[in-house]
Parts: sequence; structure tokens; C-alpha cells
Amino acid sequence: MTVERKHVGPRLSELVIHGDTVYTAGIVARDPVSDDPAAQTRDILAQIDSLLAEAGSDKTKILSATIWLADISYYDALNSVWDPWVPKGQSPARACVESKLARPKYKVEIRVIAAR
Amino acid sequence: MTVERKHVGPRLSELVIHGDTVYTAGIVARDPVSDDPAAQTRDILAQIDSLLAEAGSDKTKILSATIWLADISYYDALNSVWDPWVPKGQSPARACVESKLARPKYKVEIRVIAAR
Amino acid sequence: MTVERKHVGPRLSELVIHGDTVYTAGIVARDPVSDDPAAQTRDILAQIDSLLAEAGSDKTKILSATIWLADISYYDALNSVWDPWVPKGQSPARACVESKLARPKYKVEIRVIAAR
Repeated sequence: MTVERKHVGPRLSELVIHGDTVYTAGIVARDPVSDDPAAQTRDILAQIDSLLAEAGSDKTKILSATIWLADISYYDALNSVWDPWVPKGQSPARACVESKLARPKYKVEIRVIAAR
Repeated sequence: MTVERKHVGPRLSELVIHGDTVYTAGIVARDPVSDDPAAQTRDILAQIDSLLAEAGSDKTKILSATIWLADISYYDALNSVWDPWVPKGQSPARACVESKLARPKYKVEIRVIAAR
Repeated sequence: MTVERKHVGPRLSELVIHGDTVYTAGIVARDPVSDDPAAQTRDILAQIDSLLAEAGSDKTKILSATIWLADISYYDALNSVWDPWVPKGQSPARACVESKLARPKYKVEIRVIAAR
């Protein structure tokens, strides 16, 4: 099976495709980064939509999602954006936990594994 | 490869099957939730046994497990239940780290990737 | 698809191979453990090189990496070792977050999924 990488930097690739399985990096909000965890989630999910499209996949094919919140108190804000974004009947396996992230400005980080 | 989902909610599916690979959500203890991290672990592993059975898999086929403890001081309590549950000679790749979980009542969350 | 395990203990296997996909455990530094997060990273990446070699893989084929830092302040120390180790043009999807680890002596833990 081939390995294909997109948005390849010296530290990480944002998208790695192995056969029929697609891995994204942990995605954080783009600059200028809002202080609002819901706004960050919205930006992250838009990036994930784009990445999956580049891989020939989409959000109906997400297998597993890992969500890190810099403070678990953002849980409801996250879900206020996550729940309507998830395709009805095709929700991924998900885990959502608290971890501080690379920079204090980041409140949310999301990584997915998808089929294509 | 087909994608099959079971226990599908609006936020997450507890079980997602992609070809020969099975992904569970991060599983936490069921209500009424014990305060005891060992008891929570026991309940979680019973749920994982059931989910894997539904996927045509079982604990001898777990590839990777991620364990989050709300406090790393639960490490020995977790292992007191985990170690005897793991099939001799067929232990998964495992990582166990501390992260606060979605609700304060949850002390342990476990997610697995398995073959089937 | 077959499942093959190496460095199998009663709690975890350090390496699990499922068809063309390789899963490592969360790897921490070996004893005697340095206090320096950069030194721990160097030791961990050497172990990952060895594990991947045993699986018929190598660091050019890493699909996804999860990095846990016991304190996110180790971020730059981690990257000072990580960045030169990563093969140019073949960087993995990566997430790096803060979580306390199993023992206070551990500052860094890294887990990878690779193709082979």
C-alpha cells in the first residue's frame, strides 16, 4: 500500500494517506486565533473538511476522532459546534479529554482517522 | 472497504468497523458510576468485550489501547484490573496517561483499535 | 490479515503488526532515565527506530505520531530532537499535548502508527 503525504512540513504533515485510511495531524485554529473555544472548533472542523476532501474523503467517513481541550470546561462549547457538524447516522468513534496544548492560545485540538 | 457503525448517536458511535479494523470510542463507566477507579475499569473492560464481540473480534485481537486516567495516581488500580484481563501472549500496544475527563465522576477512559 | 506481536509483556506489547500497519506502545525513556526532556526524546526515538526496523518499517513510513509531554514547557526541547530526526518530505501526522505520565521521572512519551 502506498503512503501519500500532503501539507508536508519539517515537523509534521497535516494529512497522510495509507491505502484506504487517512490520518490528519492534530489540527488547531488558524491565526488570528479567537479566544472562543466554539469559534476555534468551527475553524478546526472547516480545516478537517478541506483536508478530508483533498484525500478523497469527507466527514461521513470519519472512523475515529480524538479531541483535546485545554480546559475540560470547554466541553459544552465544543459540542455546540461538533454535534451539528457530525453527519446524522455516521458519527465517528470519539474520545474527548483535557490536555494543555502547544501554545496557550489554543483551546481545542482535533485529530481524525478516516476511510476514503 | 466498507464502514459499519454500531451504537450510533448524534455525537459519536461506540463502534466503527473499517474492513478488518475496529475502532471503539473512548469508553467510560456506566451509571451508576462507582467512585473506585478499579471498579470503573472493570465496567469499561466488560463494555469493550461486548463491543468487540459485536464486531466479530475479541480481546486477543486488540492492536492498540489508549488509557486516560483523570489522576495518574489511579495507575496501580487500573493495572490491578487490566493485567489479569489481558490475554497472555496477546497484549496490545498501550499508552496510559493523565487527562481530566468529560465529567468529574469519570476516573478512567479506555479506547481500543482491534483487528477482526 | 495476521496480527504479530513483539516484545510482549503481561501488560502491553511494544510492537503490534496488523497486515501493513504497525502500532507501537507509548514509548518512554529507558533506565537510567535522564532528567532532560531532550535526552529522553533522543532515547525514545532510538527505540522507535529499532522497533520499526523489527517490523520491516522505518521512520520514512510513519503515518501518525502522538507525543505526550509531562509539561508542555518541554515543547521546544522535544522539537530540538524531533525535527532533525524526521525525514525531510516524509513527516508524519503529529499531535503533541500535555499529560502527566505513569512515573514522575518520565517527561516524554511517544507512540507511532507506521506503514511497512
